[in-house]
Amino acid sequence: MLAGHTYGLHRVIEPSGVLPQPAWKVDANAPLYDNELVIEVERLNIDSASFRQIREEANDDVDAIKEKIAAIIQERGKMHNPVTGSGGMLIGRVKAWGARFPIGHLQQGDRIATLVSLTLTPLRLNRIIEVDIANAQVAIEGEAILFETGIWAKLPDDLPERVSLAALDVCGAPAQVAKLVQPNQSVLVLGAGGKSGLLSLYQARKHAGSKGQVIAVEYGAEACQLLQTLSLADTVIQANAQDAVGVMEQVSKLTDGKLCDVVINCVNVPHTEMTAILSVRDGGKIYFFSMATSFTAAALGAEGVGKDVDMMIGNGYSPGHVDITFDTLRESPQILEVYKKKFG
Amino acid sequence: MLAGHTYGLHRVIEPSGVLPQPAWKVDANAPLYDNELVIEVERLNIDSASFRQIREEANDDVDAIKEKIAAIIQERGKMHNPVTGSGGMLIGRVKAWGARFPIGHLQQGDRIATLVSLTLTPLRLNRIIEVDIANAQVAIEGEAILFETGIWAKLPDDLPERVSLAALDVCGAPAQVAKLVQPNQSVLVLGAGGKSGLLSLYQARKHAGSKGQVIAVEYGAEACQLLQTLSLADTVIQANAQDAVGVMEQVSKLTDGKLCDVVINCVNVPHTEMTAILSVRDGGKIYFFSMATSFTAAALGAEGVGKDVDMMIGNGYSPGHVDITFDTLRESPQILEVYKKKFG
Repeated sequence: MLAGHTYGLHRVIEPSGVLPQPAWKVDANAPLYDNELVIEVERLNIDSASFRQIREEANDDVDAIKEKIAAIIQERGKMHNPVTGSGGMLIGRVKAWGARFPIGHLQQGDRIATLVSLTLTPLRLNRIIEVDIANAQVAIEGEAILFETGIWAKLPDDLPERVSLAALDVCGAPAQVAKLVQPNQSVLVLGAGGKSGLLSLYQARKHAGSKGQVIAVEYGAEACQLLQTLSLADTVIQANAQDAVGVMEQVSKLTDGKLCDVVINCVNVPHTEMTAILSVRDGGKIYFFSMATSFTAAALGAEGVGKDVDMMIGNGYSPGHVDITFDTLRESPQILEVYKKKFG
Repeated sequence: MLAGHTYGLHRVIEPSGVLPQPAWKVDANAPLYDNELVIEVERLNIDSASFRQIREEANDDVDAIKEKIAAIIQERGKMHNPVTGSGGMLIGRVKAWGARFPIGHLQQGDRIATLVSLTLTPLRLNRIIEVDIANAQVAIEGEAILFETGIWAKLPDDLPERVSLAALDVCGAPAQVAKLVQPNQSVLVLGAGGKSGLLSLYQARKHAGSKGQVIAVEYGAEACQLLQTLSLADTVIQANAQDAVGVMEQVSKLTDGKLCDVVINCVNVPHTEMTAILSVRDGGKIYFFSMATSFTAAALGAEGVGKDVDMMIGNGYSPGHVDITFDTLRESPQILEVYKKKFG
């Protein structure tokens, strides 16, 4: 069996020497390497920006959508939309693996979801079975390759599949919060009512403990009511997270002017960096999980107000992040209910 | 004396309630508040993007440039270019301060540079004396306001002014490196030959110690030669920091496959996030100082290769950062020489 490159460079066709993600074309047809896992694919979850672009180009004609998707996979060896640059993820069953692949407890036939982007996943398409336009999903027959560094999650039997997928989409956040937050700390969660916010809020409460202080900020009135019934936060503030001064003033009042030890930013709109910066104490930590975060706004914002604060880029991976995420849903029947209602 | 708002909201005219930086117009004419410092301005150092835009609009005519600058300050109460959104910084002498301003050892008449952007600094212009087109500097008569949270640096007598200003521009980096790097660690500095790279490299060597391992990556041949003569790094690698796999392979070889404990990214070109991510060990730390860093490239990049790593947004402020920066130039006559040659 051939020895593969840790990051899958052995499958890159052009340009050679780059990683599979930036590569234009990867080889999905080569035989199995020693550090690879082969997945019998059931379904592609196409990234929403990518799927929208394909739908528009195909005028919502299902056959044209199928043709377009097949053409991309044929051309690039992966479902990597050349216009949007985005991918998605996939679900399938474990088929085979090389001797060096860290297989853990996985067994042949297990259903897994890949947690790395389709933009770096070699994919061989046999045929497209069905396109689910409403959910940006495509049922296919085909095989995909995961490298030794590619992460995946076994889909649990006790949770609905769509709920699991929604949770996996944000599973970096609750795991990082669980690592960051210490007993008795004060924690602010911005965007606490959203998909990642709810899981983060649960972990913040769990790790800050009953003597800690947890403050939730959320824009929507309905989401605020929901947060009240969850009783995870000591205080729920209904506010626009872009209002840096307004939020800071409320946080300051609630913490006797001390501000928060940790701020978790889960807001999926831009221009909320300053709100996090003003609401954290000197020497505190901000964890930016939102993809709407601007690196320069954060860096220059902290400098502009002379704030000594550690600002972390939310890493989508953290050891044990899948287990922590699914356990959150198991430990909190209320959050599971919300997930079922919203994403089930 | 009137009590000012910590972040200067009392000077914001429109829209009201926002911070001075995003505000369209601030009040530079109100009398002194208790948490403010008044600076008799000597010179504005206009941000290069802003100055280029003004030059182009004025067809490089000096009088037209003056008019344009005066009009912006008149309209907005600050030198905040409405087209580029950028500012710059200023140099001047301490004139007066309110009772609550943390004046420290500053005295009336001291020459200081502001370390917060002109985009949030109220500025009253009496007249423009001279425009130095080559250096994007404008000599003026006028007064500027610094709030209690605004940071500044006293210009030292023993260093040339232009050298001090160049160093102040990047003073967050060496201070953060001094905090981050521990004895005996292995440290990789990407872009080690540049303005922030040199100061960071010095602090990396100082804090890793003689039993630590310091690796410098630099693109330019001349800069690599310079780094060799400085003898701060154990190894100087001449490489393009965008070549993630190539750099990682060299770093892996030099560290017996262990990779580095800390990576400092000072490269001022985009697409170097992955190079930092691949070169750091699991559980290590990356400190992104470059403004060319993409938040999403870093977040998704680490997830894509399943790397458990702390990624920090380079904060331009850190307590004591000015002293650490000037001391670096004083401790290393060689780096001072480079700064004099390049920026003096």
